[in-house]
Amino acid sequence: MRIAIDAMGGDHAPHSNVEGALAAAREWKDTEIVLVGNEAALTPLLKDRPSNLLVQPASEVIEAEDEPVRAVRRKKDASMVVAGRMVHEGQADAMISAGNTGALMTTGLLVVGRMEGIERPALAPMIPTVDGKGVLALDLGANMDAKPEHLQQYALMGSLYREKVHGLSRPRVGLLNIGTEAGKGNELTKHAYPLLESLSIHFVGNVESRDIMNGVCDVIVCDGFAGNIMLKSIEGTAGTLFSLLKEQFGQSLKTKLAAALMMPQLRNLKSMMDYKEHGGAPLLGLKGLVVKAHGSSDANAIKNAVRQARFAVQNHLVQSISSEISRK
Amino acid sequence: MRIAIDAMGGDHAPHSNVEGALAAAREWKDTEIVLVGNEAALTPLLKDRPSNLLVQPASEVIEAEDEPVRAVRRKKDASMVVAGRMVHEGQADAMISAGNTGALMTTGLLVVGRMEGIERPALAPMIPTVDGKGVLALDLGANMDAKPEHLQQYALMGSLYREKVHGLSRPRVGLLNIGTEAGKGNELTKHAYPLLESLSIHFVGNVESRDIMNGVCDVIVCDGFAGNIMLKSIEGTAGTLFSLLKEQFGQSLKTKLAAALMMPQLRNLKSMMDYKEHGGAPLLGLKGLVVKAHGSSDANAIKNAVRQARFAVQNHLVQSISSEISRK
Repeated sequence: MRIAIDAMGGDHAPHSNVEGALAAAREWKDTEIVLVGNEAALTPLLKDRPSNLLVQPASEVIEAEDEPVRAVRRKKDASMVVAGRMVHEGQADAMISAGNTGALMTTGLLVVGRMEGIERPALAPMIPTVDGKGVLALDLGANMDAKPEHLQQYALMGSLYREKVHGLSRPRVGLLNIGTEAGKGNELTKHAYPLLESLSIHFVGNVESRDIMNGVCDVIVCDGFAGNIMLKSIEGTAGTLFSLLKEQFGQSLKTKLAAALMMPQLRNLKSMMDYKEHGGAPLLGLKGLVVKAHGSSDANAIKNAVRQARFAVQNHLVQSISSEISRK
Repeated sequence: MRIAIDAMGGDHAPHSNVEGALAAAREWKDTEIVLVGNEAALTPLLKDRPSNLLVQPASEVIEAEDEPVRAVRRKKDASMVVAGRMVHEGQADAMISAGNTGALMTTGLLVVGRMEGIERPALAPMIPTVDGKGVLALDLGANMDAKPEHLQQYALMGSLYREKVHGLSRPRVGLLNIGTEAGKGNELTKHAYPLLESLSIHFVGNVESRDIMNGVCDVIVCDGFAGNIMLKSIEGTAGTLFSLLKEQFGQSLKTKLAAALMMPQLRNLKSMMDYKEHGGAPLLGLKGLVVKAHGSSDANAIKNAVRQARFAVQNHLVQSISSEISRK
């Protein structure tokens, strides 16, 4: 198995990416890790490298502020694009990047290529839940306007991902909606409901956004717009509450004492809410596996993304999605 | 001025509604308060009533579990419907109900009637913000699928509401979106953006849901589906965090001590996040003013809804909306 890592993408590239790649190569001897990027920058960081860690040269870098489509089209030797080409050509089974999200989605579409039968690939991050298990949400921003048939494909892909990568049997798939009754929603969700019902997955019906964090389902299906609103509302509310709490704790000697007593619990709570802790987000519906690691990924996050990609490849995720889609 | 109150709607009806009405009638002698409902149930609660508190008999009640459209059509003598009819016929300037939300929206449409030129009335609750000022969000569920022109009308109505009822000059109006740049969004928001720009309001552009609670705008415009997802994500996250916090505080003697030290601050924080504290939600775009009070309204909440309705009537909210809409 071979996994390509975009060595140059992310806030802490190339250092964290290289460190994460080294740790992964040392842990999984059966896996070839290919760092894609500027050789001159990478070589000094790679003294003492294991034999299953390789370098694939790429002279350009897509920056965070680059316009995605233009960057992917013009920078043909960018580390992200070269990694995508390796997946397209079968030289790698999966690729991981912590770089520009829009550019990675474009790389997925234009370089790796859509899976036959899939109209819209979907970005599928994990949202934290109280029970610590998380819920896979898709689509979270790859496509703003979805048709009912797209939501149906998201449901199928999300269910297979939770099964193949996280080992869940019969993952519970919910449809993000404004009420739990079957007839509820906008035109999109009303039409998507019977399509999801018709699949041979464990569809648990409509799920309201207020229940997401209580772990009522393993996969939540939505269009990219609604998904973005949900994710950022959760993020924003959690962030706001933590800063308010911090402010309140700082108000007096008494509250400062309380803060000191509570510190380990508060840290726990904060990390529980941190969706970055849940690893990379797969981009599903492509000819190969593409994983978006968080922009602020450290070495451990990169290594975790490799772990995730390994599971997916070992368990034939892409082939399973493809055969389910073609059966329909 | 005359304000009708649905005496029978809400979790604490008729007691809280009557108490709130009594308090309002005593405070505002220039305002006639009309309690609409079952006379036999109301009379015993109304010993010692001020002369500006009246009763309008209505023999039926719409229940929380009633199907909205059917209930409004069949229960022609329901307290909510009778109050709506009073507004329609000019016997009241505004109505307030803490009853079934769907039925109240239906009463607005079928009994009170749409304002000429308005395609879709909108429900506009306040969402809490860190600075305590709140943001008026519309539409929050009256219409699931909106057209760009509807969002334009929401923007105009929301801006006028904040100006006339809350006394803000040039309220900042934002469009709920997935990014702040002008070209972002789905088909709906992309087309709505220039329409909002063309209005003579203070349009501040796209606003992301993660920034809502930071008070970056006074009015946030969205379709009912996205609005519902946003509101319930905020509610759900806040609720989840508070229960997690409670759990953490209960873990040991040390954390229990911390909780005791922090109690006043935690109560503060919780009430700051409670959107019920922000009063009733107007249903905008009707021929008269309809205010939806929260289902769990106590007497104080009912009195606050009267205060709100008084401001709106005194400052000619409905007439202002009507003249702005007809000018376009």
